[in-house]
Amino acid sequence: MTSKYESLAVLLKKLSDINYASGLLQWDQEVNMPEKGGEIRAQQLSTLAGLSHETGTSSEMENLLSELIGDSKLDDRQKRNVKEAYRNFTDRKKYTTQFVIEMSTTVSQGFQAWQQAKKENNFNLFAPHLQKLMDLKLKECELLGYEDHPYDALLNQHEPGMTTKQLKKLFSDVRTQLVPYVQTLLEKKKIDDEFTRQHYDKQKQWDFGMDLLKQMGFDFKAGRQDLSSHPFTINFNSRDVRVTTRINENDLCEMIWSCIHEGGHALYEQGIPFENYGWPSGEFTSLGIHESQSRLWENNVGRSLSYWKYNYPRLCKVFPDQLKKISVEHFYKAINKVEPSLIRTNADELTYHMHVMIRFEIEIALMEGKVKVEDLPQLWNARYKEYLGIEVPDNARGVLQDVHWSHGSFGYFPTYSIGSFYAAQFFRQAQKEIKGLDQEIDNGNLKPMLLWLREKIHRHGRLYTSNELCNAITGKDLDFGEFMEYAKIKYEQIYN
Amino acid sequence: MTSKYESLAVLLKKLSDINYASGLLQWDQEVNMPEKGGEIRAQQLSTLAGLSHETGTSSEMENLLSELIGDSKLDDRQKRNVKEAYRNFTDRKKYTTQFVIEMSTTVSQGFQAWQQAKKENNFNLFAPHLQKLMDLKLKECELLGYEDHPYDALLNQHEPGMTTKQLKKLFSDVRTQLVPYVQTLLEKKKIDDEFTRQHYDKQKQWDFGMDLLKQMGFDFKAGRQDLSSHPFTINFNSRDVRVTTRINENDLCEMIWSCIHEGGHALYEQGIPFENYGWPSGEFTSLGIHESQSRLWENNVGRSLSYWKYNYPRLCKVFPDQLKKISVEHFYKAINKVEPSLIRTNADELTYHMHVMIRFEIEIALMEGKVKVEDLPQLWNARYKEYLGIEVPDNARGVLQDVHWSHGSFGYFPTYSIGSFYAAQFFRQAQKEIKGLDQEIDNGNLKPMLLWLREKIHRHGRLYTSNELCNAITGKDLDFGEFMEYAKIKYEQIYN
Repeated sequence: MTSKYESLAVLLKKLSDINYASGLLQWDQEVNMPEKGGEIRAQQLSTLAGLSHETGTSSEMENLLSELIGDSKLDDRQKRNVKEAYRNFTDRKKYTTQFVIEMSTTVSQGFQAWQQAKKENNFNLFAPHLQKLMDLKLKECELLGYEDHPYDALLNQHEPGMTTKQLKKLFSDVRTQLVPYVQTLLEKKKIDDEFTRQHYDKQKQWDFGMDLLKQMGFDFKAGRQDLSSHPFTINFNSRDVRVTTRINENDLCEMIWSCIHEGGHALYEQGIPFENYGWPSGEFTSLGIHESQSRLWENNVGRSLSYWKYNYPRLCKVFPDQLKKISVEHFYKAINKVEPSLIRTNADELTYHMHVMIRFEIEIALMEGKVKVEDLPQLWNARYKEYLGIEVPDNARGVLQDVHWSHGSFGYFPTYSIGSFYAAQFFRQAQKEIKGLDQEIDNGNLKPMLLWLREKIHRHGRLYTSNELCNAITGKDLDFGEFMEYAKIKYEQIYN
Repeated sequence: MTSKYESLAVLLKKLSDINYASGLLQWDQEVNMPEKGGEIRAQQLSTLAGLSHETGTSSEMENLLSELIGDSKLDDRQKRNVKEAYRNFTDRKKYTTQFVIEMSTTVSQGFQAWQQAKKENNFNLFAPHLQKLMDLKLKECELLGYEDHPYDALLNQHEPGMTTKQLKKLFSDVRTQLVPYVQTLLEKKKIDDEFTRQHYDKQKQWDFGMDLLKQMGFDFKAGRQDLSSHPFTINFNSRDVRVTTRINENDLCEMIWSCIHEGGHALYEQGIPFENYGWPSGEFTSLGIHESQSRLWENNVGRSLSYWKYNYPRLCKVFPDQLKKISVEHFYKAINKVEPSLIRTNADELTYHMHVMIRFEIEIALMEGKVKVEDLPQLWNARYKEYLGIEVPDNARGVLQDVHWSHGSFGYFPTYSIGSFYAAQFFRQAQKEIKGLDQEIDNGNLKPMLLWLREKIHRHGRLYTSNELCNAITGKDLDFGEFMEYAKIKYEQIYN
């Protein structure tokens, strides 16, 4: 280890310190901040963002990186860290201060306009802001650079190495394979899941969710759970990882699967080596891989019969009246019911990807100038009719439902599907490699699953790209076929 | 308003943003942070402290201040703000980076050693650290400069304008007037307060405390209350002010008066004009004045018969079994029982100042080289015997009880007494100026009290020193005689 490498570590840690301080301010904003605290909080966050940009693009950092990038005395791991840190640095350098300020102002106004538009069910309030955001994003693509498609530049921020071309192919598979398969399921006898929408006491739900997190191996000495209106995971280092959940007293499912989902994200963060704090090897590798962790726990584990063989009797003890007539097999079917719906975040494991596909198609059409912002509601509604067979009653539950675009987050949605597809591929590999995995889950022992993920994914941080990881784990690239196979086996059994 | 004045505002706001971000990290550390999060949190705080120092001593700030300090176009209020900001700047500039780092490391090690020493009841573990801290503090006094006594330099950080000479006189009055007066009370018949130490349900205590805060006028849209092991108040701007309390199920008093005390601090912060954020006029003026606010609410209001005429029946409704045999007069006497005790934070309104006096005397003796660190336990115990008439059984409950010295906070303790004495003086003035104040309190209407404090103290921020404020409000300097008079009237009635 050279002393310059250590100097870089000091600087990268300083940068992380600033970014994670911002993270805490954001977490607090969602979880604790009193109503009137918002105005100054936004300003404090913007000040920290400025300091982060200054630190992350300083000439000190540039000099160290330039000298280290060709340093042959570094070992492979160090070289990877330096290379990735250099990539982050050059990306940051591409942004002018003027652009950062313009984007931040546009996002801030766009977010407020979106909130208002959604509340009033009036897309026109948001449209001019969305247009401005899209124009800026296109400018950002030019700043960042790309080879083939401007969307590649945005994808690269969230899923380094993934291309628009690959995604178009992927969603064409979704369109040609998953959409008709779901159609066949919808023609079968409907599953009764009414019992999930009885009254379920808030405190009891909370306690049960905490138990599920513990069972997964969430370390409460290195994290905590709170309530918030939208569940999320955030971390300030791998020893302070926080999840939030929400509880609907009239729907048992919301809490359970938001707990398991966020728990999956959190286990990833808790599994990244603490000593790598500041370095790329101390960060998650991509949003797709992050989502693969949450989805693997949520769906492949958390919606499996094995998982509920162990947990359903425990759930029945908590809610004996509500569940007394429901067998574990019935419960299992109900929590896997496939049914087209309006809202992405409430969708089942299969139709979920149609929600994502629609957003991807719209983002691409916008970027390629094939659709105008003002025509989005029409396009949105037509696609929901086409893929999901449902009518969208209003824009609040349609094109305005997600916050992402108002944040300027384009190229983000596809990582949700990528994550699920990775999850199917990883879980299948785990079943091959971990002896008796299903039986362990039957018995409530989730440790072998967690240790496997720790070993294969968590401990590497961002030393490898998602594609490198996927190849190292499964011997091939992302393969949608594995997801389809998983889906068919599972749902044929459920809908027999 | 000149444009340079606005540029300075931008820079001062940036500085406040960084400092209040640190504040949130500290609050979170006490209230929410999981156990393992501490190591990185300490580092993150140190990074922010470094950024704060850089921003607060930048040449940009120096240039703006130098130009504005002589700007005759500014109005009086602006001149005050600039003058005070300049004073803060020059104070910060006196610290070398090397000194800041050395102090921060020494404090960090000192704090850990103190924790260990207190736990193991072994003063020797802390002694070498205390010696080092004292040496550094003396160095700090030299850096900061002083006219008469090095302790003046430290006092000036917490209570600008206050001198060691004044404090020696003040505590000599405490010694000659309060100590013998308390002695006469101790010879009277003991008050029975056993009933306060029954079992009081935690949730019910919490709810009652929240009610008391509401009644005082604490704005829950601009603040919140949480639990922590040591109650404190912290703010991130006047619209986000947070208090914490602690609940002892076997002692009703801890929660009630920590709520009211911290509530008093919080009302001050919530009353500082939001639009002055960043400027000295947007900050509290001194620790003594801050403490005057907490003590006024805690003692002059919160331990008055008027206050409990209204609140005692409400308390009885919450705890009917525990309080059924206790009249409001009995309750009032019990909560004002004077009794020498070992622990400062549990002391009554009168003996409290002997605890402070002992710490002040020891700090001065250390600074003047009249006592060695190794002899502190002996000196401590002798003073407790002399002033309070009690034997100190061990150092954990003696010289090691307070965290302050391990933080390097010398010159801090006296502000606790100063605050109480100011409170007596302010409250007396309020009684003269607010028509029927006692009757309003009888009726649970605390608004006139709050509005008076808002008008006289809160709205000014740090535009005036504590002494200027005291003169503006009461027409004279801090006057210990007023506290003695208040004490004699109150306690003669209680101990009739």
